[in-house]
Amino acid sequence: MESKIETVNLLELLSANKRQVDKIILNFLPDRHRNEEISTLYTMMRDYPARGGKGLRGSICLLWCELFGGLKKNALITASALELFQNWILIHDDIEDESDLRRGLPALHKKYGTPLAINVGDALHGKMWELLLKNNEEVGREQTLMILREFSTMLNETTEGQQMELSWTANSKWDIDEDDYFLMVTKKAAWYTCISPARMGMILGSPRASRLMSELLDRTVKMGTDVGISFQIIDDVLNLVADQKKYGKEILGDIFEGKRTLMVIHLLKNSSSSEREKIICILSKPRSQKSRDDAQFVFERMRTLGSIEYARSVAKKYSKAALREFDAIMSESDLEGSEQAKITRSLIEYMTERDY
Amino acid sequence: MESKIETVNLLELLSANKRQVDKIILNFLPDRHRNEEISTLYTMMRDYPARGGKGLRGSICLLWCELFGGLKKNALITASALELFQNWILIHDDIEDESDLRRGLPALHKKYGTPLAINVGDALHGKMWELLLKNNEEVGREQTLMILREFSTMLNETTEGQQMELSWTANSKWDIDEDDYFLMVTKKAAWYTCISPARMGMILGSPRASRLMSELLDRTVKMGTDVGISFQIIDDVLNLVADQKKYGKEILGDIFEGKRTLMVIHLLKNSSSSEREKIICILSKPRSQKSRDDAQFVFERMRTLGSIEYARSVAKKYSKAALREFDAIMSESDLEGSEQAKITRSLIEYMTERDY
Repeated sequence: MESKIETVNLLELLSANKRQVDKIILNFLPDRHRNEEISTLYTMMRDYPARGGKGLRGSICLLWCELFGGLKKNALITASALELFQNWILIHDDIEDESDLRRGLPALHKKYGTPLAINVGDALHGKMWELLLKNNEEVGREQTLMILREFSTMLNETTEGQQMELSWTANSKWDIDEDDYFLMVTKKAAWYTCISPARMGMILGSPRASRLMSELLDRTVKMGTDVGISFQIIDDVLNLVADQKKYGKEILGDIFEGKRTLMVIHLLKNSSSSEREKIICILSKPRSQKSRDDAQFVFERMRTLGSIEYARSVAKKYSKAALREFDAIMSESDLEGSEQAKITRSLIEYMTERDY
Repeated sequence: MESKIETVNLLELLSANKRQVDKIILNFLPDRHRNEEISTLYTMMRDYPARGGKGLRGSICLLWCELFGGLKKNALITASALELFQNWILIHDDIEDESDLRRGLPALHKKYGTPLAINVGDALHGKMWELLLKNNEEVGREQTLMILREFSTMLNETTEGQQMELSWTANSKWDIDEDDYFLMVTKKAAWYTCISPARMGMILGSPRASRLMSELLDRTVKMGTDVGISFQIIDDVLNLVADQKKYGKEILGDIFEGKRTLMVIHLLKNSSSSEREKIICILSKPRSQKSRDDAQFVFERMRTLGSIEYARSVAKKYSKAALREFDAIMSESDLEGSEQAKITRSLIEYMTERDY
């Protein structure tokens, strides 16, 4: 009963944060221009940011800032820039993955064509840095530059992870082991989903750089990696088994896309060589040539061989490790048992144990 | 004779600058990674920067820094970031324009496919900001943040200009007047080719922000706009009439691409309505369906109607205005007649009067 009340509180907090962040983003992005084409650019730039989403990354940043004693208002610009990051990178991601839908609506390049959509992604990317420069008025030059450096690292990691995944597809590579997979997920998802937002919140919440903080920032990489891996595995599991109404994306979409998930790696490893060949043949087909039966076949094999249960157990292992790491960080910073620590911990639990 | 010696000196200076900037870029970009796919990303990131080019933008920044009394070494990081800017934006530009070639070699997306090339552009874009953060060690926090703001403005302008041109193509729009064209060229080319590099050099060369400097920065926008417009018109004229050996790009390529140039606007305005229709029909054809005869027909009409001569005269008008504005800026800052002023002026002349 108590856990249920906490989840309700957490969800309310997330949506309140999201409203604040959305307001900053939509006030910041330009609105109208006397030139018709530029006005259309502005409309396109507002498209993804106006489509909703949970705003998890922004909330992590806000929560970690408060956790370390900072004011929420000092982290709002950074939290908003994190959400802008996700939006521009999703515009390019949808082109790269040939996705048709984003949050239930046509992907941007499906609405306006690929050339314009690439340019809109770049324009929004530029706006992210412009927004971050406004930190100077709120938190001063030193923290402004520290946050810019964090964004730079986050972008390096994310593009490296994206390169790994896109190369696997482009080169039809299927002999991927779990280490490859964890490296890809850490780079492509963990950094921008958890490591960087938490580190940025910590920087903004701490009055001044210290040796303890530098150690805690390092430990946050470990914790955020574990959260991110667990989060991504759950995301991929949900793509197979979620309730369609709650989920909002296409069930089995990852199989149609030929995505290398932990379940696929487990399935290929545990199949006979002839079956392995058949599964790779199905997964490698272009999306348009894959039938519902093809996808269903792969899914059934995953179920039979326990690939989904295996992935859940790995996610659980990473989730537990993340919580242990979080508790250790709280203990070292004398924040154990604080109200803020409880709510931040519940967000980690939520991200790694959610069912939609 | 004297003017010839000056040109030789200028070209030597440009190539010496280019070598310094290239060295910084190639030392800065990552080289090798234990993961094979990430190593390939690094190779791809180095591809365009290693292809040569004149390095005009970096040189403008270096020259303006020295012109205002600064040390060249203080502007090297910014000059290198300007060249990185051009490289990542060209990667995306080549995808958006469906260009096959870049500096005589296959465009990046032709070598590796569009998904990977988009991501490489983003990775290199990220590296541009990372490099700019290194300014902090050279010129301190205040100038570092000022330069970051200049980059942010430059990127806003460039993406707006790109949106205008891409929209004209996407919407088959041909009723474009000269004001539309000048706005597009100012945003798409003048800002990153001249306005921003000169402003950045001025900021880095001046010991400290002052009211005079703020006025001079404003006047640099006017001067750089005129240089940029003149530069772009000459670039488009050369695409029609350059000596193929010197030029290095495909002659008449812009006609094959259906690009809206000043010559096209002049041609459409001065053609009979039936001929106008025929020309638009040719220009609107997809590249693959345009014959050499089609392109030659449009070119001959331009010649007959004096469109090329007209464009040259407009370029000359902007070039003269730019030089007048430059002289006025020199006079107001008491720099008239200095050695640095002479060489900087000769670069403006070169950019707006070059024949390759």
